Amino acid sequence: MQERALKTSPEPMEVSDRDMANAVRALAMDGVQRANSGHPGMPMGMADVATVLFTRFLKIDPAHPDWPDRDRFVLSAGHGSMLQYALHYLVGYPDMTAEELKRFRQLGARTAGHPEYGHASGIETTTGPLGQGISTAVGMALAERLANARFGDELVDHYTYVIAGDGCLQEGISHEAIDLAGHLRLSRLIVLWDNNSISIDGPTNLSTSLDQLARFTAAGFDVQDVDGHDFEAVERAIARARQSDRPSLISCRTVIGKGAPNLQGSEKTHGAPLGEAEIAAARELLQWPHAPFEVPEAILDRWSEVANRGGEARRRWSARLEASPEAEVFRRTLRKELPDTLFEALDAFRREHVEKATKVATRKASEMVLGVVNNLTDLTIGGSADLTHSNLTVTKGMEDVAAKDFSGRYIHYGIREHGMAAAMNGLALHGGIIPYGGTFLVFSDYARGAMRLSALMGQQVIYVMTHDSIGLGEDGPTHQPIEHLAMLRATPNLTVFRPCDIVETAECWEIALRQQDRPSVLVLSRQNLPMLRLGHSSTAPAVLGAYVLREPGTARDVTLLATGSEVEIACAAAERLQADHGIAAAVVSMPSWELFEEQTPEYRRSVLGTAPRVAIEAACRLGWDRYIGENGAFIGMNGFGASAPAPELYRHFGITAEAAEEAARRLVR
Amino acid sequence: MQERALKTSPEPMEVSDRDMANAVRALAMDGVQRANSGHPGMPMGMADVATVLFTRFLKIDPAHPDWPDRDRFVLSAGHGSMLQYALHYLVGYPDMTAEELKRFRQLGARTAGHPEYGHASGIETTTGPLGQGISTAVGMALAERLANARFGDELVDHYTYVIAGDGCLQEGISHEAIDLAGHLRLSRLIVLWDNNSISIDGPTNLSTSLDQLARFTAAGFDVQDVDGHDFEAVERAIARARQSDRPSLISCRTVIGKGAPNLQGSEKTHGAPLGEAEIAAARELLQWPHAPFEVPEAILDRWSEVANRGGEARRRWSARLEASPEAEVFRRTLRKELPDTLFEALDAFRREHVEKATKVATRKASEMVLGVVNNLTDLTIGGSADLTHSNLTVTKGMEDVAAKDFSGRYIHYGIREHGMAAAMNGLALHGGIIPYGGTFLVFSDYARGAMRLSALMGQQVIYVMTHDSIGLGEDGPTHQPIEHLAMLRATPNLTVFRPCDIVETAECWEIALRQQDRPSVLVLSRQNLPMLRLGHSSTAPAVLGAYVLREPGTARDVTLLATGSEVEIACAAAERLQADHGIAAAVVSMPSWELFEEQTPEYRRSVLGTAPRVAIEAACRLGWDRYIGENGAFIGMNGFGASAPAPELYRHFGITAEAAEEAARRLVR
Repeated sequence: MQERALKTSPEPMEVSDRDMANAVRALAMDGVQRANSGHPGMPMGMADVATVLFTRFLKIDPAHPDWPDRDRFVLSAGHGSMLQYALHYLVGYPDMTAEELKRFRQLGARTAGHPEYGHASGIETTTGPLGQGISTAVGMALAERLANARFGDELVDHYTYVIAGDGCLQEGISHEAIDLAGHLRLSRLIVLWDNNSISIDGPTNLSTSLDQLARFTAAGFDVQDVDGHDFEAVERAIARARQSDRPSLISCRTVIGKGAPNLQGSEKTHGAPLGEAEIAAARELLQWPHAPFEVPEAILDRWSEVANRGGEARRRWSARLEASPEAEVFRRTLRKELPDTLFEALDAFRREHVEKATKVATRKASEMVLGVVNNLTDLTIGGSADLTHSNLTVTKGMEDVAAKDFSGRYIHYGIREHGMAAAMNGLALHGGIIPYGGTFLVFSDYARGAMRLSALMGQQVIYVMTHDSIGLGEDGPTHQPIEHLAMLRATPNLTVFRPCDIVETAECWEIALRQQDRPSVLVLSRQNLPMLRLGHSSTAPAVLGAYVLREPGTARDVTLLATGSEVEIACAAAERLQADHGIAAAVVSMPSWELFEEQTPEYRRSVLGTAPRVAIEAACRLGWDRYIGENGAFIGMNGFGASAPAPELYRHFGITAEAAEEAARRLVR
Repeated sequence: MQERALKTSPEPMEVSDRDMANAVRALAMDGVQRANSGHPGMPMGMADVATVLFTRFLKIDPAHPDWPDRDRFVLSAGHGSMLQYALHYLVGYPDMTAEELKRFRQLGARTAGHPEYGHASGIETTTGPLGQGISTAVGMALAERLANARFGDELVDHYTYVIAGDGCLQEGISHEAIDLAGHLRLSRLIVLWDNNSISIDGPTNLSTSLDQLARFTAAGFDVQDVDGHDFEAVERAIARARQSDRPSLISCRTVIGKGAPNLQGSEKTHGAPLGEAEIAAARELLQWPHAPFEVPEAILDRWSEVANRGGEARRRWSARLEASPEAEVFRRTLRKELPDTLFEALDAFRREHVEKATKVATRKASEMVLGVVNNLTDLTIGGSADLTHSNLTVTKGMEDVAAKDFSGRYIHYGIREHGMAAAMNGLALHGGIIPYGGTFLVFSDYARGAMRLSALMGQQVIYVMTHDSIGLGEDGPTHQPIEHLAMLRATPNLTVFRPCDIVETAECWEIALRQQDRPSVLVLSRQNLPMLRLGHSSTAPAVLGAYVLREPGTARDVTLLATGSEVEIACAAAERLQADHGIAAAVVSMPSWELFEEQTPEYRRSVLGTAPRVAIEAACRLGWDRYIGENGAFIGMNGFGASAPAPELYRHFGITAEAAEEAARRLVR
């Protein structure tokens, strides 16, 4: 704030909207120039629209950036990050100083190349990969309605605004997102499309002839088309959009790089600094004589009205919260507090099924666990990408979320894996929700873009991915994951769980529920799996990532490592080795490599042992060499799967107790 | 064919269209019932539409299934595979016998759970993952126009027909595909939408309210809406669509499971056998008294007219080919013959740049190689997902492909990575084209679904993926690949190349061009890399996947393994180790793990050596343990990247010659 006060205006001036927008333009072109890297075209093109949005509508309080009832602003066209940083500086977010603008794109700066969630306050989500912002915003707008249905207009009543570019709207994920938004009539979602007819290769008509307005209308949006440099027209459009009973698209016709006299309107302004000469010429054209990063006080004063308006709104809201009988529940929800009764119930659940030796598919086990969880907390919001009865993600009494009634807790995401994952990111970011959603593991391929962002942002999103191997059988190689476990394990900050039975499934769910700072993937079988745990333990061993499930009576001759459905095979192999050959084999279940890697070296050594090791997993080998070592063996898949009943496939691909036994014998020999 | 003749009709019968369609229905429900697995609803619902398409329009010759000028039929709703198998049996594809229908979904059958390319003739592409078929078909329809522009109507004049379901149209990839198809006015593309208002969770209105006709109109399609059980209406619609100057969508309103009296219209018919009782009731309703898998000869006779008509057309076409001066070129194109001059030129290119010690980014090297390649063959069709001047995929003289002129060779795929990959699959499957397309490596996330199908189908599609690490710098973690190399290496039947300099880049391109039976990914740097090869070799060592780039003068103390931009770091570390510590370090460049794994164990041992090993790669560790062994070290990324200039990031994340030197010293000590 100090720095802002240092800016001086040489004489009193009348501040126009144009001046306010030009402050954004100047900061953007200066920031990019100084970094010698970045994207000036979009911020300069959308400066006018953003100025209208922020000064006349956006409900934020920069001094309390996490105020729950703030409007959400999502810069889906994340390459235009200087637009957001400039706006944040101008409205006075305390952490967005002029110094930060000068450090644009430098190591450790809040002003990263693309807006990074957590780097600076007010950045509601990480954007950059195109289409993610608009799709995440759909989840935010949905979360607003879900929270509104619980807590009412008094406590939850805000909008989600998105600035999206042509790239966002060309990406397939945008189709999934807007179809879902239109279906659910998320009328608090307002998308401002930077319709500048330019993409990186040149004019958008090199690659598209789409009628976007007609397309959004088809998806159930209210659409408008305005001159994005006409302040009053933009204001009227946003005002109308706020009144619509549908989500809105406002096509803002703009000139990319507006203000750069020789380059505006060209793709040349998209992704490179304008250069000193062009910036000087722009300063002339914009009548902006001020030095780089300097904004006259009078202009800053007018910008500070945003914070004043927002602060006032926040104080009124806080008073309502204090007066509300729901205040404590509201706060507890935001903290995502799970009741002790839930964990006690899960402990009882595990005890019960150890005793009963329940044999079910782990997807079924997951459903049973969810039956317990969803009864004892309403933080969980479930859903599936049109595979509800395959993923087994709905539990008794869960009502559907629908356009006319947001009091339900189950979302039919449609055949939209990518859109689902992004929407779940939005639900999680909005707060007070633990979203989980299902699809087949193989279709993590379709959701990768958004799953990566769950991990990068450290959001508690739980992916329920069933049909996890050739064990799904007849649907064949297009449906049988091979490389997907490796792909997920390779992703930083993502916990992958592949439980072997109902008890491990319950443990993995519990860990996923407790772990608020990162996403989890539960990788679950279609086929039934026996209960393998020998007795109940209150300290769930799955939290260690891997543990010895069977230790032989004598010193180990060999250690068999496995996950999920292959742990059963390992146990069978161990028994055969002992019975037929007197070979002492330990069995290690490894439900989560990530958690195992977090244990002490001593623990890891004790689990893996010093005897030769055989790993068994119905997936590709990549990654396993770390655990089997140079002299170990791997029993798994060497290529794609096939269409046949599951037991035949296991035999055909040689993933059997016999094969494990044989491999172990060769190593021990 | 023999089996077909065994079918007998008890008495002469008048065969109606309905009878012909009911043959499809009966075979589909019987096939699924026998397999006790599969999807009867879609084949029964679309039997009438498919019967009209096959009997009145589709130009195929089952005796010559690969006839180049055949129409392409793509079952995008691949779960309805029994529809395709039944049709193939009825029209007399020799390899689709009744026995195969009875072996539906069994190991080794041609009748896999979903249509698998290469399993049976006439299957033009693998489908199952929703949206892939329609998007691949866009590539096929585009390939038809490209070939037509080269060879004229005499030799290339056919349609691409697609049957797509609600799932295909909800998936995001469909948006990318239809936008591209509409833009390029691919009027030979006709999509028949199985508009049955049912998806797996139930009625489609659980999750969508989209106006599909308006949506396709917005994308530039001609659209029609017909009763899918009205043969004449369907015929009129297809006839009109064939005349349109735009791609077509025909909404065929159907009843899922049509013919099953108690289940039709319900999602219950989607993915499970109908059961014996319902099948018996369906036989009554359909007036189909014949035993399972039996089709009366009179009905088969009428179905055989498809082959007669197609055979006649093929013979006329063959005569035209024989008479054409282009015949030899046409055949050579189909064989994808690359001229010797091309490989000679690449050899000369490598020699030249070894001598010059050319220092360029490998993306730039790729552009230079393409300059040579594209001049000497016109099999290559290039493109990029709106990153042309970043991926450097266009070369001098390449004209854009456009709706008004298909004689060009460069495709602006738009901001549509997934659609691009699927379209490239279609280009490759159609034949006579080696498609390559560019995006940033991190956006392989967006293209995964279709890339996996390139690999599963063994199609020669070349992915040019640049900006391959934190070396891209300021764009930050959303743009910096970490897990992507592991993800791609984990994918079966895909060759991943990460060359270290211009010479290796040329070698990798050459391998990718020669390798007709699988896709390749060229993983290329944004930043400049020095030429590291010490001398020219006519036998390009990159074909071995990994090779010793620097062997110390004395026995190795340590071996440094690296790929791409990190090979330079390994070389610097080796020099420092020798100079400062007298440690003899070998440097191994590993441009392709897959090719290295194909070498003999002896070769692999000789490359890796017995000394301790340090691997250096600016990516995640997953997979590297295989090469570094239990006592080796890894220098790379442990989490996501950051936004800063590239050299700073390398220092910040400790991927430096100093770090490699230190790790090596610790191992040798």
